[in-house]
Amino acid sequence: VTVYLVGAGPGDPGLLTRRGAELLARADVVVHDRLIDHELLELAPNGAELIDVGKVPGASPAQAGITALLIELGRTGQEVVRLKGGDPFVFGRGGEEAEALGDAGVDFEVVPGVSSAFAAPAAAGIPVTHRGLATSVTVVTGHVGDPSAPGGVDWASLGRAGGTLVVMMGMSERARIADELLRSGRQATTPVAVVHWATTERQQVVRTTLGGLAAVDLPAPSVIVVGAVAGLDLGALVGEGGPAGQGGPSS
Amino acid sequence: VTVYLVGAGPGDPGLLTRRGAELLARADVVVHDRLIDHELLELAPNGAELIDVGKVPGASPAQAGITALLIELGRTGQEVVRLKGGDPFVFGRGGEEAEALGDAGVDFEVVPGVSSAFAAPAAAGIPVTHRGLATSVTVVTGHVGDPSAPGGVDWASLGRAGGTLVVMMGMSERARIADELLRSGRQATTPVAVVHWATTERQQVVRTTLGGLAAVDLPAPSVIVVGAVAGLDLGALVGEGGPAGQGGPSS
Repeated sequence: VTVYLVGAGPGDPGLLTRRGAELLARADVVVHDRLIDHELLELAPNGAELIDVGKVPGASPAQAGITALLIELGRTGQEVVRLKGGDPFVFGRGGEEAEALGDAGVDFEVVPGVSSAFAAPAAAGIPVTHRGLATSVTVVTGHVGDPSAPGGVDWASLGRAGGTLVVMMGMSERARIADELLRSGRQATTPVAVVHWATTERQQVVRTTLGGLAAVDLPAPSVIVVGAVAGLDLGALVGEGGPAGQGGPSS
Repeated sequence: VTVYLVGAGPGDPGLLTRRGAELLARADVVVHDRLIDHELLELAPNGAELIDVGKVPGASPAQAGITALLIELGRTGQEVVRLKGGDPFVFGRGGEEAEALGDAGVDFEVVPGVSSAFAAPAAAGIPVTHRGLATSVTVVTGHVGDPSAPGGVDWASLGRAGGTLVVMMGMSERARIADELLRSGRQATTPVAVVHWATTERQQVVRTTLGGLAAVDLPAPSVIVVGAVAGLDLGALVGEGGPAGQGGPSS
């Protein structure tokens, strides 16, 4: 194996997996997204090359260039870690990178990470499923112009299906998303939570309703949680005093 | 904090988080599910008490007893790690445990884990979202009699919503689930993958279609993936040669 597609987790460096940490510690090259915590990059050896490919959630990255770079590096036989926010196979376009590496004959391995889709709600004290409140959770991207959306997202059916809805990269389209869900029959009083910079020192949580979502003003990276569970606040801290001593959301 | 609700990840000990490993290493008591890898339990100090609360996926655990135990242990002021498979807040009933601890005035912290809902597909080379194939993923429990299902699951709307469907604990109800999805309009030729004991040495993957799901004979723990992405096999290994030297699915 020469290229490792590693999920960095939602933000808190303590939420990287042991396997991910081990691979970083022996990497020759680390190709990383922009929002990766510097503390994770410091796990790489002193001489390792660090390449920021500038992939910001919600932005349109030069994916073809990233993929070409991974193939080129993979062919040198070096240990290459492609460090991606969250989980590589959940809206991370890791599938495209894996496919291209496979087609090019470059050995690779996928190391799952803790997805922000579940960890961002948790960091706000919200379990995505909960007895009596939600028996399913749907994760969707709200990013318009997303090239991975062939026919767009069927918000009407998603709305009707009930359960918890987690929208990644959805803030710029929040008004439209709220509108579509209201038209599908969801109540304007449905609880909504927006979690910004989840699990990091910069975390902010705004609680509102589906009717109030359009008025929430938080930039990326933010995760929108829609459904009865978004009204819970179990008060659980996440990541406080992690390996790095980084403060949790409530510390 | 006295009680830590820690996600153990999908199976491979390398997929535990750094934070989870740190907490285990200083635990006085570890209260764990049955299917937790012994290697993770060995991360606890020599003198630590290990309590198997025997929670098998698909079985009906004595949840009230587990919760009462956590409260009792939490009140002793010891460092208690409640080690749960996958992520505590994704079908793990961690929300109930957190709620009860909070109500009882016991300090706790939630440490997210890598969810089997995403890692099991990944271990079979399947990204749950992929350009041109799926822009959303819904995770649902197929376990009938699940007390967390107030009105059951709206399979018809879930089916119509398209996107990837991941069914946890669904094997005993696979025939009924396939039937409901077919009636919602999903094609019998829709790709399906069943991943048994994902990310461990015992991993098995069966590939079929929605029409063939009823005939798949794999026991728990298994995750069912339904949708176009289930036809992918990006050939990615997961966890091979992890910290524990445990073999990955293809090794």
